[in-house]
Amino acid sequence: MNQYKLYIGGEFIKTDQKLSVFNPYDNVLVGETYIAGKEQLEKAIEKALLVKKQMRDLASWQKYKILNEIADKISAKKDDLALLLAKEAGKPLKYALSEIDRAVQVFKIAAEESKRLPKEYFSIDWTPAGDGKEGFVKYFPIGLISGIAPFNFPLNLAVHKIAPAIASGNPIILKPARSTPLSVLELAKIIDETDLPKGAFSVLPMDREAGSQLVTDERIHMLSFTGSPEVGWKMKANAGKKKVALELGGNAGVVVSDISDIDLAVKKCVVGSFAYSGQVCIHVQRIYVHENIFDEFINKFVEGTKKMKFGAPEDLNTDVSVMIDEENAMRVESWVKEAVEDGAEILIGGKRKGTYFEPTVITSTKKEMKVCALEVFGPVVSIEKFTNFSEAIKNINDSDYGLQAGVFTNQINEMNEALNELEVGGIIINDVPTFRVDHMPYGGVKNSGFGREGIKYSILEMLEPKLLVKNTDY
Amino acid sequence: MNQYKLYIGGEFIKTDQKLSVFNPYDNVLVGETYIAGKEQLEKAIEKALLVKKQMRDLASWQKYKILNEIADKISAKKDDLALLLAKEAGKPLKYALSEIDRAVQVFKIAAEESKRLPKEYFSIDWTPAGDGKEGFVKYFPIGLISGIAPFNFPLNLAVHKIAPAIASGNPIILKPARSTPLSVLELAKIIDETDLPKGAFSVLPMDREAGSQLVTDERIHMLSFTGSPEVGWKMKANAGKKKVALELGGNAGVVVSDISDIDLAVKKCVVGSFAYSGQVCIHVQRIYVHENIFDEFINKFVEGTKKMKFGAPEDLNTDVSVMIDEENAMRVESWVKEAVEDGAEILIGGKRKGTYFEPTVITSTKKEMKVCALEVFGPVVSIEKFTNFSEAIKNINDSDYGLQAGVFTNQINEMNEALNELEVGGIIINDVPTFRVDHMPYGGVKNSGFGREGIKYSILEMLEPKLLVKNTDY
Amino acid sequence: MNQYKLYIGGEFIKTDQKLSVFNPYDNVLVGETYIAGKEQLEKAIEKALLVKKQMRDLASWQKYKILNEIADKISAKKDDLALLLAKEAGKPLKYALSEIDRAVQVFKIAAEESKRLPKEYFSIDWTPAGDGKEGFVKYFPIGLISGIAPFNFPLNLAVHKIAPAIASGNPIILKPARSTPLSVLELAKIIDETDLPKGAFSVLPMDREAGSQLVTDERIHMLSFTGSPEVGWKMKANAGKKKVALELGGNAGVVVSDISDIDLAVKKCVVGSFAYSGQVCIHVQRIYVHENIFDEFINKFVEGTKKMKFGAPEDLNTDVSVMIDEENAMRVESWVKEAVEDGAEILIGGKRKGTYFEPTVITSTKKEMKVCALEVFGPVVSIEKFTNFSEAIKNINDSDYGLQAGVFTNQINEMNEALNELEVGGIIINDVPTFRVDHMPYGGVKNSGFGREGIKYSILEMLEPKLLVKNTDY
Amino acid sequence: MNQYKLYIGGEFIKTDQKLSVFNPYDNVLVGETYIAGKEQLEKAIEKALLVKKQMRDLASWQKYKILNEIADKISAKKDDLALLLAKEAGKPLKYALSEIDRAVQVFKIAAEESKRLPKEYFSIDWTPAGDGKEGFVKYFPIGLISGIAPFNFPLNLAVHKIAPAIASGNPIILKPARSTPLSVLELAKIIDETDLPKGAFSVLPMDREAGSQLVTDERIHMLSFTGSPEVGWKMKANAGKKKVALELGGNAGVVVSDISDIDLAVKKCVVGSFAYSGQVCIHVQRIYVHENIFDEFINKFVEGTKKMKFGAPEDLNTDVSVMIDEENAMRVESWVKEAVEDGAEILIGGKRKGTYFEPTVITSTKKEMKVCALEVFGPVVSIEKFTNFSEAIKNINDSDYGLQAGVFTNQINEMNEALNELEVGGIIINDVPTFRVDHMPYGGVKNSGFGREGIKYSILEMLEPKLLVKNTDY
Repeated sequence: MNQYKLYIGGEFIKTDQKLSVFNPYDNVLVGETYIAGKEQLEKAIEKALLVKKQMRDLASWQKYKILNEIADKISAKKDDLALLLAKEAGKPLKYALSEIDRAVQVFKIAAEESKRLPKEYFSIDWTPAGDGKEGFVKYFPIGLISGIAPFNFPLNLAVHKIAPAIASGNPIILKPARSTPLSVLELAKIIDETDLPKGAFSVLPMDREAGSQLVTDERIHMLSFTGSPEVGWKMKANAGKKKVALELGGNAGVVVSDISDIDLAVKKCVVGSFAYSGQVCIHVQRIYVHENIFDEFINKFVEGTKKMKFGAPEDLNTDVSVMIDEENAMRVESWVKEAVEDGAEILIGGKRKGTYFEPTVITSTKKEMKVCALEVFGPVVSIEKFTNFSEAIKNINDSDYGLQAGVFTNQINEMNEALNELEVGGIIINDVPTFRVDHMPYGGVKNSGFGREGIKYSILEMLEPKLLVKNTDY
Repeated sequence: MNQYKLYIGGEFIKTDQKLSVFNPYDNVLVGETYIAGKEQLEKAIEKALLVKKQMRDLASWQKYKILNEIADKISAKKDDLALLLAKEAGKPLKYALSEIDRAVQVFKIAAEESKRLPKEYFSIDWTPAGDGKEGFVKYFPIGLISGIAPFNFPLNLAVHKIAPAIASGNPIILKPARSTPLSVLELAKIIDETDLPKGAFSVLPMDREAGSQLVTDERIHMLSFTGSPEVGWKMKANAGKKKVALELGGNAGVVVSDISDIDLAVKKCVVGSFAYSGQVCIHVQRIYVHENIFDEFINKFVEGTKKMKFGAPEDLNTDVSVMIDEENAMRVESWVKEAVEDGAEILIGGKRKGTYFEPTVITSTKKEMKVCALEVFGPVVSIEKFTNFSEAIKNINDSDYGLQAGVFTNQINEMNEALNELEVGGIIINDVPTFRVDHMPYGGVKNSGFGREGIKYSILEMLEPKLLVKNTDY
Repeated sequence: MNQYKLYIGGEFIKTDQKLSVFNPYDNVLVGETYIAGKEQLEKAIEKALLVKKQMRDLASWQKYKILNEIADKISAKKDDLALLLAKEAGKPLKYALSEIDRAVQVFKIAAEESKRLPKEYFSIDWTPAGDGKEGFVKYFPIGLISGIAPFNFPLNLAVHKIAPAIASGNPIILKPARSTPLSVLELAKIIDETDLPKGAFSVLPMDREAGSQLVTDERIHMLSFTGSPEVGWKMKANAGKKKVALELGGNAGVVVSDISDIDLAVKKCVVGSFAYSGQVCIHVQRIYVHENIFDEFINKFVEGTKKMKFGAPEDLNTDVSVMIDEENAMRVESWVKEAVEDGAEILIGGKRKGTYFEPTVITSTKKEMKVCALEVFGPVVSIEKFTNFSEAIKNINDSDYGLQAGVFTNQINEMNEALNELEVGGIIINDVPTFRVDHMPYGGVKNSGFGREGIKYSILEMLEPKLLVKNTDY
Repeated sequence: MNQYKLYIGGEFIKTDQKLSVFNPYDNVLVGETYIAGKEQLEKAIEKALLVKKQMRDLASWQKYKILNEIADKISAKKDDLALLLAKEAGKPLKYALSEIDRAVQVFKIAAEESKRLPKEYFSIDWTPAGDGKEGFVKYFPIGLISGIAPFNFPLNLAVHKIAPAIASGNPIILKPARSTPLSVLELAKIIDETDLPKGAFSVLPMDREAGSQLVTDERIHMLSFTGSPEVGWKMKANAGKKKVALELGGNAGVVVSDISDIDLAVKKCVVGSFAYSGQVCIHVQRIYVHENIFDEFINKFVEGTKKMKFGAPEDLNTDVSVMIDEENAMRVESWVKEAVEDGAEILIGGKRKGTYFEPTVITSTKKEMKVCALEVFGPVVSIEKFTNFSEAIKNINDSDYGLQAGVFTNQINEMNEALNELEVGGIIINDVPTFRVDHMPYGGVKNSGFGREGIKYSILEMLEPKLLVKNTDY
């Protein structure tokens, strides 16, 4: 069993409050770390402020070198990190391995983007008032950033804040989820070995008071939060003058048109529905299938679901494992039950054993049911039929959320309609909404978020433009 | 004397509450209009929501045509509009004329930019996970926008919200300042004659309750506010899920280096200090002059100030007229008095007659004095000496504000230092911070604002990106 | 009957060689002008070189003003210009009117783009060798440009060289086609009234010797040629150090897939085949129709062809008029005859009367026939059937040319295949290859051309980048 | 002594014609390879054409992986490669090492850029003709490329053609200089070990006939040549339909203003003048120094020159070694002699010993002297004084060449004047024209070249845009 100290700007420290992390699959202790209070946060803030100028003045090649070095070191520890991540999050090893690969990818892309920060150069003399002048915009780091990361991608969603912060020349203080702080503390050890100025990065699981200061403290210039909508939107109101980026959840939908590849759609949707027990912001929660192919789709989908192999997260063959805790498993169970009582039909699954909830397919749902209307964040998907494409689009839109959507079709006009009418941040044609590569812009509309991540896009949000107007004929 | 009805999405209406607008110079009634309450605002919102889709679907050429038509019609009424603006705002006619020209320019640029909304197209296959896929980002209108405009540029600062809203395909509801609502109501008549869908634009001076709903109503997706810092930052906290853009004030500074063109610096600084009685967000409030040229600068500056001609705003020869109201004139008077009591020295000016406050130059100030530390928003400037350039930069930065700064120099290293170290949104080399052309990015850091205006930049803030990921080898 | 003098950098002059221009429809004299020799060309070159620096130094607003003024003046003379153009080119008035509109559009877009010339700003410090340095790229006018324009769009294809030249700050000498020099000489009168520096623009129909100097003279920095492939490619070899842009011809093809809108396809293809008697670089010359809809397409196409109304070019109801001269009409006649002798079948048309050649549809062609393999530049189209989409793509590619292609389909995979596999400069989905809007990049591959036009793209070709590397920490 | 076979698309082969490579310092045999004739070239072309489609269809991640692998393998062999390069080119080891580093850098940047190939997406509906349409531009590989590289940077200037070719998806056939073919043949071994499709890369020293076919063969779509102006411009005339990029030479100049850092200027200029015996396209050949500091500059420069250590290229302490061959050393000697006879004065150096020519500083030159007017490509620099800055600019411009220029100054107005008036491809402020980092745009105007290199810029030249116009409201 491992001890993990907190990482405060170059120092590994302990506090009075211990935090034990257990594997949700077998309740075995994975590791122990500490909870930071206001005192530790204050230290982290002060250290960060001290290196602000130094961070701003790093040359491109220095940031590039640091970020690539982190990527290489993560890569070298891939197996250990994946196992740790699998255990603390109960995430099947195959997905944990892919998460490590993605974290490596994020640091590499951030390295490349650090050399390509936006800069503008344009003519000012559009009217005689601007005669003999030219304009330049140089983007400077916005200042100290606080990042708050969720349990479901303990490493990669933290890395989506850390890597852009370094690339843009900002110090960052990261608060991981209490249930899954270990892999990012392991990352701290890696980062500590690089030339990143000490103070530019801290990782602190926090108590409530410190956590709330992360939101309100005016010395922090940006808050980047990934988590639940309820918590996120409240933070926006309390954030004072700082910029806020919110990556929240959703109830992502898929449309399967009659002119499309059914087998592809089934294969992608089964994985999109049940991977990591649906504990993914863009998990497939609602599928709308054209009536002509509905029965075939349902049959094939249930068959596909049966093949999902349950097991321990550490096992490379496991497709589905447990949920993060029993509380969540019980919540999902009760939502499904409520739906069934209100007329929904379970096609497969529906049972809970401790923290495990079976991959569950339901139909005959109503849109007001919690399993449809709220973010289920569990291995539950509803499949319903539609008659015409526009109706399916409306079904997807009939939601408070709007993160991503998938559309299986081979028709140009349906693709156009999807792009124009779907109220979401991203539309994936012939793939599930669960599709994400790390350099694409990612984020939701409506209740699902505020701003975009995806390295280049995060970097842009972490920069402040400064205009220089200069004479040219002086 | 003219009656101006409110403009609610295609209808000109009256309400029970009259609003009389007086010329601050001679207290003559300029015109009468009305104040809207929640009922009128509700109507404007509903009308706006009804045309959201229609606005989104306007072709480029339609937006281009509408915006150019507005520009041409403003241009055709230039003299009348300038006179109206001069009277309601007490703004010398020469500046009022130039404000009309700029409003024309803003609509023309918005027309051009409406054809060039951002669109992105990029490869997705950076890892095998993205094989056979490409990404596209199309930017859609964000939704209903509320704009709140100040008294000092009654037309152009409103236009900086209206024109980008139309160009980006968004409906907008504009709340003008109570003291200067008439020119923008005149603009409403012009816009009403175009093909802009009725409902896409409303102008309403409002009572407090309606005004506060503009900030909180969740059917509104963006709030664009230009006004005072105190009011602005409070709005950000109350804005709920909507995006907020704040263009606030400052205490803009100028540095005059020893290797620079003194005569140019004096000429530009006198106008930057006293134009429209300093009631300009980027008015020159603090000047730091190198000790080698301090005396010469001071002498020439006082000479220049003497030449500023006082008169009625309607008079084309007037350089300086009254302030917007006596309350503000008295406030400025008291700040200057307080400064003098604390050791400052008046070189010229300092006296008040009703709403008129003389162009005033002070020196031997301390940075804590209100005339230095707060936004004076009046015809007062302080001039101090410095020994080395870095010290002058520090003086400028020693402020809660950071809008724009001017630097007179012919040295490359000083220009570099200014760009890297000045904590402001824009730096103007060899000109005053008061310099603004309408297409440049404009906005402040620190307490001075949040986000950037400048047509292309405003448009970007009024758009929401939507990603399409598409297969290419299907 | 009108006399048109040549325009040499601000002067209207005569030469010894007269040039008479006749209406190809009725052989009536339209106007008289002159042919320039080496002496006049020398004068034009010298005047142009004298204003190079002045052109380079025009402010954005000056170029914008000049270009918009030209657009407005063309617009004001629209009816007269269209009539002149209809007469000199034998172009039906409806198409002549649309050509004038497009010329207006080109100048307006050029005005807008003149404010948006490319400029780059980027970091240099990707390695320690670049420490403390930043890079800037400013684009300067390339130098004197020679433009050579064809007869078929006498105004707009000349304007596609003139407007970008002005926008990019380059002087230009234009050689119009001998058969259609008048409308561009009319344009010279318009341009002469603006503030464009005298010398920056000259129009000269030329004798062979002067024409060849346009290609070889090393004081000219770029040659922009629109015309036949044979002439164009030879010019490239003789152009010395100058840059060359070639817009040549083709034998554009259309694919009509089985899942597409047949009526739309027929309607668009009939116009694309016969408008201006096919004397258009992107005229529809080859149509490949899926076998499932071939018979229906053929029938509807022949019906559509019958409705094309023959008449005088000056008549607004005329759809088709004569060809530019009898030589070309005879050439087309002989090609069709040759095809028929080799097995092709005429579905409609095929006869010639003087300069008139009937709209002609043939089938059962072989790809080696001149009507297929060469650029027919006349009102002849072949329609053939195909079985699968890839085969149709291969048919289009089986050609020495590659300008544009049209594809009617509603299938995403066919659109993808078309984009990836068609060897052309542009692909128009659900429209004919004849589609062109003036701001889109336009130009061919293979024998069809070299470089791209389309205002922004032409401007880029007319600019030379200059890098500035500057220290930032000096 | 090593044997190097030619590399033809995956095969290492011998021919009948041997080529021996000697170290110009001690005439020791460095290695032996072969010369290819038309037969071998034909084979390389055929192999290249066979993999064109495969190259086009490589995913981003595949090109990225290949290019990074090449970079890593070069890096791993750095010392051996540098030694080989030092020997075959007579290049002092310290510069050879830095050339290897730069080649690594070029492949890495190309890897990054291969994921960021340009793509455009824009609105088409600027007029009603474009209603319901959008435009896309995707850039496709231009086709087979022939690269011709010079002796002076045997590896890196070849790599500046190879890496962008791979990144843009084009096959390339490279012809190295006969005197220095070995390091690039060593590179071939490295590339052969990667997944680059066999056929996509060949390296062939060629006989005259094959070399000339590289220029004329119409199956080759682009010729990228680095070498002498005389050869380059002739190639342009013979290149047929293919695109041509020319990186030629110059007689680069430096201006040292009175307000500048003299010690910095001297230090940079000495190295820029004599590194690799001035056999660098952007070697410092002419220095213009302000009269106020002329004497001080001259003295310090001569002192600096004395410290340049002569020695064998393989010695890490060597600053200056021999020239590439005796013929060139004798040419330089005769030019200097001629200058002295015409009044020039030698301040230091001027003597030749075999292939060695001493670092030589001359003054009192006339601009017509060969050492000034032509490209000296040897260790000779002239230093002259000027009175005002504009005169110095004119001196630099008084040349047939225009590659890069250096300007030492701390004045904004001088920097502006330099940017606007210097007729060169690049201006380096406070550094020598010899400054080059590999990602910056690089290339000359006037006789010095045609087009730009610098990875992103080379890639752009190696791509052909293809437009897709698509309906959006279908």
